[in-house]
Amino acid sequence: MKPELVALGESLIQFNALSRGPLRHVTLYERHIAGAETTVAVTARRQGISSGIITRVGDDEFGKAILAWLRGEEVDVSQVRIDPDAPTGIYFVQRGFPIPSKSRMFYYRSGSAGSRLSPSDIDPEYIGSAKVFHVTGITPALSESAREATYKAVDAAYRDEVTISFDTNIRPVLWRSEERAARVLKPIIEKTDILFTDPADSRILLGETELEAILRGFLSMGVGTVVVKMGEKGAVAATSSERASADSIPVYVEDPIGAGDAFAGTFITSQLKGRKLKESLERAIIAGTLVVTVRGDEEAIPSESDIDANIHI
Amino acid sequence: MKPELVALGESLIQFNALSRGPLRHVTLYERHIAGAETTVAVTARRQGISSGIITRVGDDEFGKAILAWLRGEEVDVSQVRIDPDAPTGIYFVQRGFPIPSKSRMFYYRSGSAGSRLSPSDIDPEYIGSAKVFHVTGITPALSESAREATYKAVDAAYRDEVTISFDTNIRPVLWRSEERAARVLKPIIEKTDILFTDPADSRILLGETELEAILRGFLSMGVGTVVVKMGEKGAVAATSSERASADSIPVYVEDPIGAGDAFAGTFITSQLKGRKLKESLERAIIAGTLVVTVRGDEEAIPSESDIDANIHI
Amino acid sequence: MKPELVALGESLIQFNALSRGPLRHVTLYERHIAGAETTVAVTARRQGISSGIITRVGDDEFGKAILAWLRGEEVDVSQVRIDPDAPTGIYFVQRGFPIPSKSRMFYYRSGSAGSRLSPSDIDPEYIGSAKVFHVTGITPALSESAREATYKAVDAAYRDEVTISFDTNIRPVLWRSEERAARVLKPIIEKTDILFTDPADSRILLGETELEAILRGFLSMGVGTVVVKMGEKGAVAATSSERASADSIPVYVEDPIGAGDAFAGTFITSQLKGRKLKESLERAIIAGTLVVTVRGDEEAIPSESDIDANIHI
Amino acid sequence: MKPELVALGESLIQFNALSRGPLRHVTLYERHIAGAETTVAVTARRQGISSGIITRVGDDEFGKAILAWLRGEEVDVSQVRIDPDAPTGIYFVQRGFPIPSKSRMFYYRSGSAGSRLSPSDIDPEYIGSAKVFHVTGITPALSESAREATYKAVDAAYRDEVTISFDTNIRPVLWRSEERAARVLKPIIEKTDILFTDPADSRILLGETELEAILRGFLSMGVGTVVVKMGEKGAVAATSSERASADSIPVYVEDPIGAGDAFAGTFITSQLKGRKLKESLERAIIAGTLVVTVRGDEEAIPSESDIDANIHI
Amino acid sequence: MKPELVALGESLIQFNALSRGPLRHVTLYERHIAGAETTVAVTARRQGISSGIITRVGDDEFGKAILAWLRGEEVDVSQVRIDPDAPTGIYFVQRGFPIPSKSRMFYYRSGSAGSRLSPSDIDPEYIGSAKVFHVTGITPALSESAREATYKAVDAAYRDEVTISFDTNIRPVLWRSEERAARVLKPIIEKTDILFTDPADSRILLGETELEAILRGFLSMGVGTVVVKMGEKGAVAATSSERASADSIPVYVEDPIGAGDAFAGTFITSQLKGRKLKESLERAIIAGTLVVTVRGDEEAIPSESDIDANIHI
Amino acid sequence: MKPELVALGESLIQFNALSRGPLRHVTLYERHIAGAETTVAVTARRQGISSGIITRVGDDEFGKAILAWLRGEEVDVSQVRIDPDAPTGIYFVQRGFPIPSKSRMFYYRSGSAGSRLSPSDIDPEYIGSAKVFHVTGITPALSESAREATYKAVDAAYRDEVTISFDTNIRPVLWRSEERAARVLKPIIEKTDILFTDPADSRILLGETELEAILRGFLSMGVGTVVVKMGEKGAVAATSSERASADSIPVYVEDPIGAGDAFAGTFITSQLKGRKLKESLERAIIAGTLVVTVRGDEEAIPSESDIDANIHI
Repeated sequence: MKPELVALGESLIQFNALSRGPLRHVTLYERHIAGAETTVAVTARRQGISSGIITRVGDDEFGKAILAWLRGEEVDVSQVRIDPDAPTGIYFVQRGFPIPSKSRMFYYRSGSAGSRLSPSDIDPEYIGSAKVFHVTGITPALSESAREATYKAVDAAYRDEVTISFDTNIRPVLWRSEERAARVLKPIIEKTDILFTDPADSRILLGETELEAILRGFLSMGVGTVVVKMGEKGAVAATSSERASADSIPVYVEDPIGAGDAFAGTFITSQLKGRKLKESLERAIIAGTLVVTVRGDEEAIPSESDIDANIHI
Repeated sequence: MKPELVALGESLIQFNALSRGPLRHVTLYERHIAGAETTVAVTARRQGISSGIITRVGDDEFGKAILAWLRGEEVDVSQVRIDPDAPTGIYFVQRGFPIPSKSRMFYYRSGSAGSRLSPSDIDPEYIGSAKVFHVTGITPALSESAREATYKAVDAAYRDEVTISFDTNIRPVLWRSEERAARVLKPIIEKTDILFTDPADSRILLGETELEAILRGFLSMGVGTVVVKMGEKGAVAATSSERASADSIPVYVEDPIGAGDAFAGTFITSQLKGRKLKESLERAIIAGTLVVTVRGDEEAIPSESDIDANIHI
Repeated sequence: MKPELVALGESLIQFNALSRGPLRHVTLYERHIAGAETTVAVTARRQGISSGIITRVGDDEFGKAILAWLRGEEVDVSQVRIDPDAPTGIYFVQRGFPIPSKSRMFYYRSGSAGSRLSPSDIDPEYIGSAKVFHVTGITPALSESAREATYKAVDAAYRDEVTISFDTNIRPVLWRSEERAARVLKPIIEKTDILFTDPADSRILLGETELEAILRGFLSMGVGTVVVKMGEKGAVAATSSERASADSIPVYVEDPIGAGDAFAGTFITSQLKGRKLKESLERAIIAGTLVVTVRGDEEAIPSESDIDANIHI
Repeated sequence: MKPELVALGESLIQFNALSRGPLRHVTLYERHIAGAETTVAVTARRQGISSGIITRVGDDEFGKAILAWLRGEEVDVSQVRIDPDAPTGIYFVQRGFPIPSKSRMFYYRSGSAGSRLSPSDIDPEYIGSAKVFHVTGITPALSESAREATYKAVDAAYRDEVTISFDTNIRPVLWRSEERAARVLKPIIEKTDILFTDPADSRILLGETELEAILRGFLSMGVGTVVVKMGEKGAVAATSSERASADSIPVYVEDPIGAGDAFAGTFITSQLKGRKLKESLERAIIAGTLVVTVRGDEEAIPSESDIDANIHI
Repeated sequence: MKPELVALGESLIQFNALSRGPLRHVTLYERHIAGAETTVAVTARRQGISSGIITRVGDDEFGKAILAWLRGEEVDVSQVRIDPDAPTGIYFVQRGFPIPSKSRMFYYRSGSAGSRLSPSDIDPEYIGSAKVFHVTGITPALSESAREATYKAVDAAYRDEVTISFDTNIRPVLWRSEERAARVLKPIIEKTDILFTDPADSRILLGETELEAILRGFLSMGVGTVVVKMGEKGAVAATSSERASADSIPVYVEDPIGAGDAFAGTFITSQLKGRKLKESLERAIIAGTLVVTVRGDEEAIPSESDIDANIHI
Repeated sequence: MKPELVALGESLIQFNALSRGPLRHVTLYERHIAGAETTVAVTARRQGISSGIITRVGDDEFGKAILAWLRGEEVDVSQVRIDPDAPTGIYFVQRGFPIPSKSRMFYYRSGSAGSRLSPSDIDPEYIGSAKVFHVTGITPALSESAREATYKAVDAAYRDEVTISFDTNIRPVLWRSEERAARVLKPIIEKTDILFTDPADSRILLGETELEAILRGFLSMGVGTVVVKMGEKGAVAATSSERASADSIPVYVEDPIGAGDAFAGTFITSQLKGRKLKESLERAIIAGTLVVTVRGDEEAIPSESDIDANIHI
């Protein structure tokens, strides 16, 4: 049975600092499963949309941990390749330092199994049978072969009229230059139906940081729905004919990482279920808010009824 | 020596999740002593009012832990029966999920020693010698025999003109129906001198959720002092002739469970010490506020001087 | 696809004390997945034999944790029923006290979902398609309906000539009397192909505690292979025509619980793979030894190659 | 009601290193209640002999922790004085370093409340009503006033024919010189009925390290029963007419501190209950063995039935 | 090579409660390095100003931990004396109780190595070669000899025209009376170039609690720059000719201890680097804010670029 | 001031599993500083021999942690290069699985700063001023440039008649083939004065696994002192004219990693101090034994007096 949502990207092990502050003084780390697209797949599944992930993990204990987690979450792993020649990608999270409400990531993913994703990992039929295909700007930044795999996957989705969801997610450390990032991502954006972005990425992609210019810019590139995340100022979603916005929810931030992916996954799921733009946005914000209250990106992803409980307080 | 405050209700072991989020992903749990009425008894004692608890625990390690804790807190345990045929009641606390500022409880108390409380556990003389008798809506919900024990205890207190303090505390999962809850609790309320409640419980008991209607409703049932807890909106206390209100204190919420009982215990104690309605309310809010800053219901209950320190900052 | 090994019994949540000593003084507990038959199913799967478990869990966070774990381990969960009316069974482990090398269990499984297993949970075809059916003396002790379910399952296996594996596993606290245990278990034993037992259980079942008498007794009841576990003295396996023994491996004991099930699962798997009695026994002892070095019953179950690594040191 | 066993000595807070090795690299510490004589009082009570402790604690959180613990253990605290002018004594435990099976203590008890014990803390009647009075060589080493208090207490016990139990327990760091230790302790030993010692202390007190010479030496000083602890070689007890010995029990050593006091408390209790010398010794060794398996001196002290469970394995 | 900033004061070990609430219920403690002046020295070094500390530690594991930490931070330890006759000073931190946003300290520093600082520890040349000498009101409160050492050091700095930085830091528990504190500290203040204080200390020193009066008072005593910390109301710095103020930054408070010293160290460093008063103040507030987000005083002290990251968000 | 012992090799961050068993089920990890040669340098310094390490770390938090640790240990870091283009090398330790007494390492050091060690990092004068130069078989296995650096360093030591100490330490995962390992290491061995090895490495290097053949083989290659570590069977040291052996010390194994390096460092130090072969061996075994009792390679390295304490028990 083919999943309704298919995501492409590296599944990683995250080592989250138990204490805040610079990692040089942190002695205990907590292991979690992460990866931007992986989190979107888990979000969809927890909210009742079947999902699958296309990725590579190493033939090691961390790869086994990722597989067990995904199976436990009922995410389809038929497209997870175990690469015998490279370790599973990992990264470390420094929380609350130097900026109290932010986290900083230290990657050990260069040469990882996930960075070796290549066109051979892409089964066009698997993607073509889905309702939505999701990828982020991280995957094409991992390596040349991963970029090619992304293009192949996007093309497959486009050809079969699968809704393409794309989160710009530009991680500067993974790119040679901002120009390179823009050049690689634009062809994807031009085929994107649902785009998630923020002012920082929009500056790189469009040269714009103001909301109206961002919306106008991406819509004019052919994007169907543009969703702009503005941190404490909430989020806005727009199509060529409709506009909705929603406030952020103030909450104690344990670790913001993963919130954007739970947000994206919930927005997509809500849209798939036929919800209105504004309701989709509000539900997405609730999901993102819950994720920032915990360490780990995927543990606190809400189900549909968990979100309902927040709406009906 | 008979205690000044006597409480009736199940003492339980609480397993509090070390991490926030759904329990399915929480691996470490911290053991605490809990039980609504138990917390009131500990609060009174810590603030200089002798107290005792009428309860049952199992003949097991958890029962021993409860007894040691109560003795350590100098709560009289002469009326704690060790039931050889049932385990000590326990429950688990899921924190911050699905609603970030709330906790959810998972009980394992059906058939527990505490649920087997019965009229045979009630010594009318023990209650009759006290100044205040306290019980909550939880105890009569535990079982038929526990309901009978509650009625017997309330009657004993009423007969000997002991001040009756009652916290409505309706836990839906413990009742067959809201109607049943209302039917069982109303006879107690009619004998109550100090009543603690909130809009949610008032809806079930009175069909009212507005403050004025709640106050009017309970006062007209003969309650002496009605205290309505309104969460972030603070609390109000009223008698037929007097009214006082106090604001809540914004604070980081680690776990809200137990706050209502520390609030009630402090309000009762303050009244016993002759404090004014408003001062009693303010002190009660400080106590409740401290309890939400920690896991565990009883560790952070303040002494009188601890409360003073908050007033004189 | 039907699994090669099918097990029947309650999957439970285990709360293992982080510190040794009496639980009354232990404040931190670590959550694990357990259940004697569940552990056998996980053992088989980790060693390359497909497996499935027939059980019931509650519609709660702990039930979800069990399902996620089993899916992660690739144990078939098609026969796990989610019971909306009862909580998932749990128990607590006290380690190293009062006997330094032993653990003591405190159950909260009376009235649990798992104790409500009934004949309606048994699909004879599911069992009939397996190569091995495994159950222990715990399942028929849980309740009348669980006993009937066990009989129905054993009969189904017997009818379809599925190898029946049975671990006597008599937990005194679950039985009204030793006589009752013997009476209920004997009809199962008479259909058993591979029997796991120890001198303590054999005393109850046969009135014998000496090895030779135990072997003779069970073989004369029609058991094909009798495996007697003798703690530090190792283990012996015998058929009517063959005999093998293996020494125990001295190791630091963190928690012995679960070792017997990893032992049984490995012995069965080894036999299914055509290994000799002695080799099967040696491999089973290695598996059991690894399990006692950790808290949790299933985390340290070895794969086939993990066992090989111990043999070729 | 006067307790059957009265002990005199400083109750302390122990901070036990969570990890082995030199404390300079240990970041987490676990708080426990300790004190040689306190542990003996807890041991007696847990085994059914009422007990009380004469000590001083500070008017601080650590003093409150000690009082709550003792009340929880039902040790009489009527003779615990809260000293407003000095902090509660504390110490740190370094485990397994530099000698793997040993612990090293770092005291912060100079000037502590307990070190200010003085003759004014001694109520001769309280001691005179007991069956046994217990003290160790630590108390008279704390300060001049503590030495005087010890003499006063020993005299009171002697006068009223209360059995005097004394553990030599010479901690070099607390004494100016070995000569001083010997001079101070000998007058106590001469009044002692049950003496606990080891070869190291005997060298200081008698100039002897050989078992026979030690026994002879102390018996000739008038001691009724001499108990010599010889670590891995077990223990020997002797009166002028009887002799018994018992082997040590090999076990994983988490922290040996406190074992000697659980041993002494159990030996005394067994004697009070009329047990034979050898059985008393065997039970004492079981108690000491359990204590070394955990951090903390008092958590794993066994009850009488816990000891029985070890005997009847 | 002589350091640019020299600080004088006791380096201590801090045991910080892992959980909030009264210490009597806290079982786990985390070890950190602390000491007001030590934190200033570490702050300077982390921000590029070489620094050294004049202190005494015991010849014990905690003294070794302090030395290793300081060396790790590249603070010059040539003036740290290892005192063979006294233990390293320690203290315990109770967090969030009884006032939710504050911590309470329990000292074990009476008789500590650091309290034995004396004029013999002061090398005038070492101080005279520095650009800034820093001390707080804690050091002269430790003992008579420590007071003399402080005076000697201040005189040496004054003589060689080293900038004298002084934080009033009056800890009531360390002083016999407020008058005594004022009498001892005033001669230091009269030589101070940069003074850090708050309204509570100013009341003791000047009899003033209002900002304008405080500034006027200290400036008229000859202080060059007065910095007044006003908690949630921010901070103000003034010279006879200039004035600057900065707001506090709202943030979750894990433990406020140490924030004032990171603030002072950053202000001094910024001034040394030629920054304006207002910028120095803003940077100091960022440093102090980061320190309150963690347990431990020195782990989260920011570098210059860490502060920049907060300014350019 | 040039150090007496200079070591060359990658300093790493080690993440040690808090729980035993396969890493896929381990969620908490403890950070330590490691690296075979680094551990030897720390060992020497802790035992009174000045030391320095030649290595590279990344310009990241983990590199900063390594530098702070080394400075804290007073190891000279003047030859530690901070490589801006590569991350600090790290690895994970799986304890007790699949072999109960062993650990398994998972490296993330390919492309790490340390693997980029090159001849440009080698200052011949720095090495030439030392008394001993130490390196292991790991360094030349890291990369081509690291191999060249090793050869350059060995040559520099050889030229200036610095004692060359070499530990064969063949990690199969770091080598293309056993033949390659042998070919690279033999030229080093031929210049080695003190060689540490074991039967497994000797098989690869000499084709021999028997003690006598190993000793003969290496001595005939020109090695001055050959030390063969034989695990539970102890160790043997031999020169052409002398022979000594020492037994292993049975102890609970928390994590064996690092023991060999503490052993080597202690043996070298003892030789430098003029101790006899046998005494050097016995002291080395004590050091190695202490290291296996803890997680982390360097925390429990003993000082000279710590070793003495074990000898004079």
